[in-house]
Amino acid sequence: MLALRVDKKRVAVRDIEKPRADNEAIVRVTLSGICNTDLEIARGYAGFQGTIGHEFVGVIENSVDRSLLGQRVVGEINAGCGKCDLCKAGDPRHCPNRTVLGIVGRDGAHAEFLRLPVENLLRIPKTISDEHAVFTEPLAAACGILERAAIKRTDRVAVLGDGKLGLLCAQVVALTGAQTLLVGRHAPKLRIAERRGIETMKPKEAAKRKREFDVVVEASGAAPGFAMSLDLLRPRGKLVLKSTFNDKTEIDAARIVVDEISIVGSRCGRFKLALDLLKKGAVDVESLISEEFSLTNGVEAMQRASERGVLKVLLRPD
Amino acid sequence: MLALRVDKKRVAVRDIEKPRADNEAIVRVTLSGICNTDLEIARGYAGFQGTIGHEFVGVIENSVDRSLLGQRVVGEINAGCGKCDLCKAGDPRHCPNRTVLGIVGRDGAHAEFLRLPVENLLRIPKTISDEHAVFTEPLAAACGILERAAIKRTDRVAVLGDGKLGLLCAQVVALTGAQTLLVGRHAPKLRIAERRGIETMKPKEAAKRKREFDVVVEASGAAPGFAMSLDLLRPRGKLVLKSTFNDKTEIDAARIVVDEISIVGSRCGRFKLALDLLKKGAVDVESLISEEFSLTNGVEAMQRASERGVLKVLLRPD
Repeated sequence: MLALRVDKKRVAVRDIEKPRADNEAIVRVTLSGICNTDLEIARGYAGFQGTIGHEFVGVIENSVDRSLLGQRVVGEINAGCGKCDLCKAGDPRHCPNRTVLGIVGRDGAHAEFLRLPVENLLRIPKTISDEHAVFTEPLAAACGILERAAIKRTDRVAVLGDGKLGLLCAQVVALTGAQTLLVGRHAPKLRIAERRGIETMKPKEAAKRKREFDVVVEASGAAPGFAMSLDLLRPRGKLVLKSTFNDKTEIDAARIVVDEISIVGSRCGRFKLALDLLKKGAVDVESLISEEFSLTNGVEAMQRASERGVLKVLLRPD
Repeated sequence: MLALRVDKKRVAVRDIEKPRADNEAIVRVTLSGICNTDLEIARGYAGFQGTIGHEFVGVIENSVDRSLLGQRVVGEINAGCGKCDLCKAGDPRHCPNRTVLGIVGRDGAHAEFLRLPVENLLRIPKTISDEHAVFTEPLAAACGILERAAIKRTDRVAVLGDGKLGLLCAQVVALTGAQTLLVGRHAPKLRIAERRGIETMKPKEAAKRKREFDVVVEASGAAPGFAMSLDLLRPRGKLVLKSTFNDKTEIDAARIVVDEISIVGSRCGRFKLALDLLKKGAVDVESLISEEFSLTNGVEAMQRASERGVLKVLLRPD
């Protein structure tokens, strides 16, 4: 089967052996989405080698439970050991022995087939198209913000970064009823948020609003975004770090102490909430699709996804 | 009157005019304590110029409310505007227009007299000696941890740094019943904590206990302490930043995101709780006193306070 793989920082589409089920399910991938993390991995982040990709829609092709065959599914990307306290409590996202689809110790979704534990797979409601369902994972990640910062209707929230993640985060935050500002550099991207009634601003303008925000979500993935986040927060405000940087970032620790800022990291969310939002059409994901490539042209697709102004690039196995 | 002042990064004892009461109270200082923040200010931190010092015990010498005269008091260091929402809610610690004793826009405590709003002053219970009461401010700061991190009896907590602040923090944390480890380099200092039943460890040994702690309190004030804090925390653990660094610190943002770490800054605490603990003898402050100097020898005292192995240095006006 074809798979988009990273080996020694080289990205290539290769013909590899189809995965075997063993105790897990085999999913025939219908559509997968390129995430910035994929681009970071190609640059060396997380030291991962193998098939990349963790956003997908597919159909169960093989499983011990034969009743699941043919189901259209998305899949949670963290596969836990099943034995530790975290896994037993039903949340393998921080299992110390977890593998993560296309990120840690487990081949990913930019391939004709992938393998995941059956319990990671969620059936997609019929009314959600493949093109929307492929956003379940990043939308769940955006929803993860709400697990890490209890946002109130009365809060003023700024989301920094108008990339795919920033646009999803801003929409999720706005659904809480909180006054939401999206800060970004690209007018066409900002318009996607504006159509959902979200206020937007260029960074230069936003920089003037020092200490005005209760919560800032850093989704720009760049060091200047981090510094600006601290500037915008009121004393005792909360900064949610959403993007994984590959680099060390400098912080002004005295500012964090004196103003008693909280910084919370946020990674994966739960899929159920994301599927509910997609079913309701509560979040515009359609506008986030920039282009679709055949999996065969995966390298070209990765190149495209890294270009300025491009949002989600999808891959479709032939 | 004599006062220990910082001007253009030069520290000197000068003869200056005694403060006038205006609408505030004048306190004759009996004893003051040198804090690491004083040393940082002398190196340029916060850009403060004037009389330094914010830990003190004194006697009210002048006040509009004549009934207060002669009272032995300590004083909260943040003086708010009295008009903003924060001040009206009774907590001026983050008032944007606050002055802070010996730190921001207000002459401090290493002097024969100081001035503070009457509402900042708290009467000291008779059973607490001056030498203990002078620890009210730093002990309140240590108690501030509990406002920023809800520590449970079942938590494993590491406190990094065996300086004055670290020793107070470790003792306050241990009072919650949580399993507490103090990490430091100096055996004689660690023994102070050990006598209170707190486990201690050298950094080299502690470094092996990766991802074991629910909460880490960074009180070492040094960049390596920050990096170690992140190493010791379990996923979703909480790092309480207690020390004000003067420098930029590098952080591994990806680690914070992937492990969903929380970092919370913590500055000042409330005095009431600290006075209660001192009254009960619940915290050993006696052992933290290294030496007492006459205010006249304030420069020498600052030098002494900055030496390795020295804990609290007190200043007494003649």
